[in-house]
Amino acid sequence: MRPILIAALIAAAIAVPAAAQAPKPVTPGAILAAAPAAEWQAVEAEDLLVIDLFKGGRIVIQLAPGFAPQHVANIRTLAREHWYDGLFIERVQDDYVTQWGDPSGKKALPKGVAAHVPAEYERASEGVKFNPLPWRDTYADQAGFSGPWPVAEGEGKAWMTHCYGMVGVGRDLNPDTGTGAELYAVIGHAPRGLDRNIALVGRVLDGMPLLASFPRGEGELGVYTKPAQFISIKRVRLASELTGADRPYFEVLKTDSATYKAWSTLRANRKDDFFLHPAGAADLCSVMPPLRKARAK
Amino acid sequence: MRPILIAALIAAAIAVPAAAQAPKPVTPGAILAAAPAAEWQAVEAEDLLVIDLFKGGRIVIQLAPGFAPQHVANIRTLAREHWYDGLFIERVQDDYVTQWGDPSGKKALPKGVAAHVPAEYERASEGVKFNPLPWRDTYADQAGFSGPWPVAEGEGKAWMTHCYGMVGVGRDLNPDTGTGAELYAVIGHAPRGLDRNIALVGRVLDGMPLLASFPRGEGELGVYTKPAQFISIKRVRLASELTGADRPYFEVLKTDSATYKAWSTLRANRKDDFFLHPAGAADLCSVMPPLRKARAK
Repeated sequence: MRPILIAALIAAAIAVPAAAQAPKPVTPGAILAAAPAAEWQAVEAEDLLVIDLFKGGRIVIQLAPGFAPQHVANIRTLAREHWYDGLFIERVQDDYVTQWGDPSGKKALPKGVAAHVPAEYERASEGVKFNPLPWRDTYADQAGFSGPWPVAEGEGKAWMTHCYGMVGVGRDLNPDTGTGAELYAVIGHAPRGLDRNIALVGRVLDGMPLLASFPRGEGELGVYTKPAQFISIKRVRLASELTGADRPYFEVLKTDSATYKAWSTLRANRKDDFFLHPAGAADLCSVMPPLRKARAK
Repeated sequence: MRPILIAALIAAAIAVPAAAQAPKPVTPGAILAAAPAAEWQAVEAEDLLVIDLFKGGRIVIQLAPGFAPQHVANIRTLAREHWYDGLFIERVQDDYVTQWGDPSGKKALPKGVAAHVPAEYERASEGVKFNPLPWRDTYADQAGFSGPWPVAEGEGKAWMTHCYGMVGVGRDLNPDTGTGAELYAVIGHAPRGLDRNIALVGRVLDGMPLLASFPRGEGELGVYTKPAQFISIKRVRLASELTGADRPYFEVLKTDSATYKAWSTLRANRKDDFFLHPAGAADLCSVMPPLRKARAK
């Protein structure tokens, strides 16, 4: 009684002469492993936000200045001023979001951080480089990727979408109240109803297993009700401030590459041993571009 | 700098004379609170699988005998024989599944449990009572609910879908190798590519915050690599075997009710204070029927 798919690992470990076997079906992993170096896009150090927790553990976020330039400018300033240091993960709502910031809501913003930022929730679709997926989207006329970003289009607009691991800016009821001082990451099924209602600013590249496994808060909306439950943030830095082994490097597969197309097509049409019935489609949030840790160049 | 939506809680706590206010927009929660008792369906005790962990914590699953009768028959027998007692949560793969069963794969099945069960992955759609949602589905011609179950239809077939919290039967590569001895729950964005490839047998009604927040396994596919990481299951019972305060009762909102229709429509078209741009749609897994704990009747 093997666990799901574990049998496949065991089977792979038992060597059988190749000639005795039918050709192995291609897997998404095999396609990815064969991607040429030029199809991987290195993420700029200014676009990597690195969160280190006091108790250990690191979260790395790729920022999206193209879609939310003023929010990202604020976040970079907050990081450079070390403003986030000593703040907390304060809210974990199951199947929804993990959020961090200042639970008191009283820490003054540093100079250079705009207290009111326009609602950068969508852009005119004209001028946005967009690689549509060939499958229907429930929420928009078209869905696909713009560079590394999951994007939906319709009504002449383009906007980033709330997929698993995407990072947004908490705000008050008024749309210009999100500064970047409060951030959240999606930890459940994509809450696409939030699209166009709140500013998305990036994607977690590393640390989702950590962010998604904190105890759920028992207060309303998953807020931790006791200060002892808060998870302390040691420091938040842009990667450009870090040096040596401390500095992370990431690459994301280009979504306009041949490998991305082959990989996403196969993800939608799995034919390897376990799969009997290829889905024939994949939704946007199921084909987020693969990424990998890299080294200094 | 309040966290996302927390301001709304605070605003609600500050009393303002009603006459001074514009009428409050209706929320999904308010619609739900007004549902008449007859729109809630009590779950049969034979359909509730109750998992208690050694370290505390309970998971309650509603079984789906209509869609996977032979798998459910096996699971009921395994529970009645107390076969699951002392087994383990053994695999937690981020954005995918938490799985439990027998990591050794060697525990003999009790008498009355079929070692080979047909692939109950889909049914003829004819005869399946189905309430379609009005919105597009990425994967199938139509998506909606059949009683409490998320269902997709196409090609003359109907099948349950892998939404957050749905429970399936782990299997080996051959489709008739899933007995119910290994079960998993979806803890991430809906992996709809698994639909029609594996037997779904139910939905977690209680305990998702627990199942979704276990540490992710560091082995391949999220398998815990050290026995010390396994999370011990104290006992698994059908609710029909439990008595008094130990016995759980649940009700699920009927998906053919007026309240479900109003609730799901509003979920897709939020107009309350926080929302500027109603989505105009909701995907199947975003409108799973609401449920509530109930009392003995």
